[in-house]
Amino acid sequence: MAEAGASELRRVLAANVRQLRKAKGLSQDAFADECGVHRTYVGGVERGEYNVSVDNIEKFAKALGVQGFELLKP
Amino acid sequence: MAEAGASELRRVLAANVRQLRKAKGLSQDAFADECGVHRTYVGGVERGEYNVSVDNIEKFAKALGVQGFELLKP
Repeated sequence: MAEAGASELRRVLAANVRQLRKAKGLSQDAFADECGVHRTYVGGVERGEYNVSVDNIEKFAKALGVQGFELLKP
Repeated sequence: MAEAGASELRRVLAANVRQLRKAKGLSQDAFADECGVHRTYVGGVERGEYNVSVDNIEKFAKALGVQGFELLKP
């Protein structure tokens, strides 16, 4: 679940990353490895804790096999 | 024009912000004021120089009257 205080768009990103990662059967660890980010960062993103940058959205999208904009689509 | 070295998604964001801002007849100054960011930041975003965060994408989208994901859509 995204944090109560997270912005609307952070919540959308959080939910989409979590859903698509699980749909690919990837653990947070495995997904973090694919993206080249730290495991705890993935957890934080999926809780809406981080103000994720466009370069990291691109990394996540590539690892998930979607286009970047799809990660921000409600 | 977005910088040659900018990531693909930065270029998409840069082009969309510039196009939508102009379509609304807003100068970079006026748009920056609406978003609560510095004028030089808007110029840098439109050149793909900045690794823009999701919170700022949300600010830009609100000022432009679109949804956040639309700013990352090629």
